[in-house]
Amino acid sequence: MAERMIVVGGDAAGMATAAQARRRRDRHDLEIVAFERGHFTSYSACGIPYWISGLVPDREQLVARDPATHREQFDIDVRIRHEVTAIDLDRREVLARDLDGGGEVRERFDTLMYAAGAVPIKPDWARSDMAGVFGVQTLDDGTALRQWLDAEPGPRRAVVVGGGYIGVEMAEALVLRGLSVTLVERGEQPMSTVDPDMARLVTEAMRGVGVDIRTGVRVIGLSERDGRVSGVETDTDPIPADLVVLGLGVRPNTALAEAAGLPLGPTGGIRVDRRMRVTGVPGVWAAGDCVETLHRVSGMPVHVPLGTHANKQGRVAGINIGGGYATFAGVIGTAVTKVCDLEVGRTGLREQEALAAGFEFVTVIAESTNRAGYYPGARPMTVKLIAERTSGRLLGAQIVGWSEAAKRIDTLAVALWNKMTVDDMTALDLGYAPPYAPVWDPVLVAARKAVDALAR
Amino acid sequence: MAERMIVVGGDAAGMATAAQARRRRDRHDLEIVAFERGHFTSYSACGIPYWISGLVPDREQLVARDPATHREQFDIDVRIRHEVTAIDLDRREVLARDLDGGGEVRERFDTLMYAAGAVPIKPDWARSDMAGVFGVQTLDDGTALRQWLDAEPGPRRAVVVGGGYIGVEMAEALVLRGLSVTLVERGEQPMSTVDPDMARLVTEAMRGVGVDIRTGVRVIGLSERDGRVSGVETDTDPIPADLVVLGLGVRPNTALAEAAGLPLGPTGGIRVDRRMRVTGVPGVWAAGDCVETLHRVSGMPVHVPLGTHANKQGRVAGINIGGGYATFAGVIGTAVTKVCDLEVGRTGLREQEALAAGFEFVTVIAESTNRAGYYPGARPMTVKLIAERTSGRLLGAQIVGWSEAAKRIDTLAVALWNKMTVDDMTALDLGYAPPYAPVWDPVLVAARKAVDALAR
Repeated sequence: MAERMIVVGGDAAGMATAAQARRRRDRHDLEIVAFERGHFTSYSACGIPYWISGLVPDREQLVARDPATHREQFDIDVRIRHEVTAIDLDRREVLARDLDGGGEVRERFDTLMYAAGAVPIKPDWARSDMAGVFGVQTLDDGTALRQWLDAEPGPRRAVVVGGGYIGVEMAEALVLRGLSVTLVERGEQPMSTVDPDMARLVTEAMRGVGVDIRTGVRVIGLSERDGRVSGVETDTDPIPADLVVLGLGVRPNTALAEAAGLPLGPTGGIRVDRRMRVTGVPGVWAAGDCVETLHRVSGMPVHVPLGTHANKQGRVAGINIGGGYATFAGVIGTAVTKVCDLEVGRTGLREQEALAAGFEFVTVIAESTNRAGYYPGARPMTVKLIAERTSGRLLGAQIVGWSEAAKRIDTLAVALWNKMTVDDMTALDLGYAPPYAPVWDPVLVAARKAVDALAR
Repeated sequence: MAERMIVVGGDAAGMATAAQARRRRDRHDLEIVAFERGHFTSYSACGIPYWISGLVPDREQLVARDPATHREQFDIDVRIRHEVTAIDLDRREVLARDLDGGGEVRERFDTLMYAAGAVPIKPDWARSDMAGVFGVQTLDDGTALRQWLDAEPGPRRAVVVGGGYIGVEMAEALVLRGLSVTLVERGEQPMSTVDPDMARLVTEAMRGVGVDIRTGVRVIGLSERDGRVSGVETDTDPIPADLVVLGLGVRPNTALAEAAGLPLGPTGGIRVDRRMRVTGVPGVWAAGDCVETLHRVSGMPVHVPLGTHANKQGRVAGINIGGGYATFAGVIGTAVTKVCDLEVGRTGLREQEALAAGFEFVTVIAESTNRAGYYPGARPMTVKLIAERTSGRLLGAQIVGWSEAAKRIDTLAVALWNKMTVDDMTALDLGYAPPYAPVWDPVLVAARKAVDALAR
């Protein structure tokens, strides 16, 4: 009899696991059943803002593999609109509710992959069922928001609460759709994923396209009229709104896991080992936005919900479940985003994180250009480096620029991954041609400046 | 009495040396005299094609620091239009000819920086003084070519001989100026700096903009009419031309050095140690396009004339001459270029070089896209990796793509610099967001494919 794997959650981590396992074991050896609460599998949640804005015309473009493809090409029994409601580790069973057809199914497993993703953080004031309030976590969320936008008459005034990646991207998307947009951020700056001195550039760019950014403002409630949202109440002035987008971040979706007794770490994510096995629970695996992972620079566990990690972790789990050997090496906090025409990249620790990890460090900010200064289209690029004071080792880097800036962070990410010192980095043989870089690449300019700072 | 340094050659390497030395020692401690044969100092030779095409409007934009700036801001006694004609190591003197004023000067030195650059390779047939034949090595060469193009009536039919970086860039520049352009390449493909399978994409792109590319054709002579070039004779058909550009590569400019007894290595470049001291010759330094350097992957000496190395080597020499400590770590062969709208990057060894170095390896070519497939502007990107068979270590990489492709080579260059294996590389935490990368970055896609190839 074939071994039986149940996958809880049909997005990146779960389906990458299933596909990798299938590559190594056919259906006579491993039967795979995947439960997905929503309507979609294997889609790009990161792409939702671009579909909302209209930049990506069709929702289906965001779906890498639909359920039919998983069934037909990979022999994976995908059941969408099925919400797993309980996991019984002793009986090796899951219970799932058919959200459309009604009724419950009970399915046996030998191997369980828990890939339930993350859920939006909702303060008490956001726990309402009034119309016009949206998270942007799943493609179903995005679909609901798109319908609200496309209705006649559509909303005109949007408030985005929270200035993280999703908040910033959604604010821009809504501006592109012609709405008047206010972004409310509790902290000093939106885009707190980079240091305030770098985030300031992002704030300026967003104001430049007309986003009304209110910082240091706390939302305390929503107001409604006829069951529809009519405004956001804050600790200062109320803000009228006929659309509210929640961008307050996410937390690991672990309700089911906790109930089943799976171990959680200090970040609230599920604890897994290097092979993505749930620590101490034989036959149970977890991957994606619901797990915590090792930060290679701080050495501490972190929760970094990001599609690229989910895919890598799923691949690792699937190789192992398939009988191979693979480990997930951890993360270093690399992230890139587009904010209006501004490109933002970061890797490693930002100042606050480096302090929290106990590092003593110097920081430098170097101004340069993306191309040779004389080459058409040359634009400013700002590179910030954080280097350990005694060793000179790179701890973190941030880039803000106007074009061809964001992905330069990868150069720094690989340097950081390899524990390079800023002194070593000044010697790096990077590509030089006038359309692509000044003769001293911005990364080298910053490394030289960091070497000088360390010598002081 | 101040120590006295003479710099032979006033471009990147020489002037970077002078500027760095000056940062650490003032003119009472170190007197600096720099001789430059041409009219310009510290200019971007790599930028010449873009000035020729008109993309960069003014020649002066290519000059990073003119002689007056060097004199006034750095107390460097720059003498342009002075050609050094002899170096006497015993008497610690150089002899220089004043090309404009006439006459000769004799100058004493304690320290000598030899930074005479490179000279174009000229077969016998190219050693002619007929009008309309140009190299593109110095800004004076570029100026002469620009004058030829700007004359009335200007040339209409150009032949570029040689399909290296400069040949390819010049062919495009001349097309942009409206000339009919033929590129003659002796080998199988132009752009032999990447493997033929990757160079083919470049050939196609160049043909797409109308360059007539003739491969496997050898030039054997030039024909003339009234002292002006009228055509190129080849081992097949003659090609009419009223402008010929030589792009046959360069060799280290070592005539003076050899006469003075400086040691040359197997590549024909001057032999220097890690601090850029000429091996075995006290008080004499060399840097830039005239020296040979260590290739960190093959372990062999190479001659890689490139502005970015010249600047780094000059900085290293200048720090040392200034009393500090710095070493040049060698190169890994990273290069990027723009060919029409195509972006080309390479690092490490190409197949032929890896064979010559004695490596046994696998190669993979992975097709991917620069952005998430659904994001507007997504274009194909082709990544080739070469990995050592037994260790899995990355030996070389090449990228060809249509936008945001070239500088991705830096990610691979840093991985290669750090001797990463392709297996390690699959774990790299690279930036992901739909405008900048698919969820599996092209670099990761290629690394995964290489891991699979190694397992076979």
